[in-house]
Amino acid sequence: MVYVLAPFTRIVNELSKLPGIGPRSAQRLAMYLLKSPPKQNLDLAEAIATLHERITLCPQCYNLAEGGARCTICADDHRESAVLCVVEDPLDVMAMERAGEFHGRYHVLGGVIAPLEGRYPDDLKIPELLKRCSTEGITEVILATNTTLEGDATALYVAEQLRPMAIIKVTRIAKGMPMGGDLDYADQSTLIQALRGRRELPS
Amino acid sequence: MVYVLAPFTRIVNELSKLPGIGPRSAQRLAMYLLKSPPKQNLDLAEAIATLHERITLCPQCYNLAEGGARCTICADDHRESAVLCVVEDPLDVMAMERAGEFHGRYHVLGGVIAPLEGRYPDDLKIPELLKRCSTEGITEVILATNTTLEGDATALYVAEQLRPMAIIKVTRIAKGMPMGGDLDYADQSTLIQALRGRRELPS
Repeated sequence: MVYVLAPFTRIVNELSKLPGIGPRSAQRLAMYLLKSPPKQNLDLAEAIATLHERITLCPQCYNLAEGGARCTICADDHRESAVLCVVEDPLDVMAMERAGEFHGRYHVLGGVIAPLEGRYPDDLKIPELLKRCSTEGITEVILATNTTLEGDATALYVAEQLRPMAIIKVTRIAKGMPMGGDLDYADQSTLIQALRGRRELPS
Repeated sequence: MVYVLAPFTRIVNELSKLPGIGPRSAQRLAMYLLKSPPKQNLDLAEAIATLHERITLCPQCYNLAEGGARCTICADDHRESAVLCVVEDPLDVMAMERAGEFHGRYHVLGGVIAPLEGRYPDDLKIPELLKRCSTEGITEVILATNTTLEGDATALYVAEQLRPMAIIKVTRIAKGMPMGGDLDYADQSTLIQALRGRRELPS
């Protein structure tokens, strides 16, 4: 007879469903939760259970928002309203905001085009982006999808869709060496982009 | 103004408390949970919230058990009752049971002696072990704590405590090369143990 304890197996199974957590990490996590004060577990359980009620998508830019309202960025009248930064997901908005360089508004696509994984343009918020561009007086769209194969393809696709709106400038974030980067460790395609994107120094 | 979304920050903070999950994995986990069906999150939340009610420690061996009862191993009359296998924690019981070689009962210490981390003999179920040894007709105690510095020290300490009970044989699990091991990759102390523990082949 194999020895199993139903409630323990259950929590291990639930935890194993999380990305990056295999059966062994799940077991260790479960043991950790068993040793934690019940109050701490209840807080975690409550945060997980109420996630979908508390966090919704902004109806304007599809960034994370609270309780069905617009996100704090869309609701902020001090942000530039003529420049849109198009990103893949809400974590990218957070990263951009940490950088503190961009003062316009965002549009979150909700992923990238990846036909091999069954994700097509229709699955992304591209029609919504086109609609915003034609109604919100946008003058520039910055395509800030990841600089991966899929991110590049998605940026190209979106640029194509925006072309008929001739008054809108469409830009792509720069590719090149990251700050603190070592040429010796840089991959070939990064170096190629760094060379192609080279700029003349001010004299 | 730094951009934050309170409920998102909250779930990220709760997830960051888990061992092995840093702020970035917590963010990714939170995004994953947001994209999961609410039902799946509720199942996970419920499993976490009810953990302490459902899983208790066996009053006899301190292994995991359900609802205050003895664990299934202690309650199983077909197990040898004269041999006790002493392990650090319930995951070790599961590992032993997977091996399927041991048919006696267990005693879970609940950790190891580690004075530098503030864990002393009194924090472990050692008095409970001594009591079992004097009342349950135990003839052998197998010390199966981990083969680490602390596990070894704890095994030695327990052996010392059992010495007055002369009728009990006290054994330690063997140390040596793991199965499928490559001598070239084995560390020095494993090889030392493998040599010291060598056994004559049957002729």
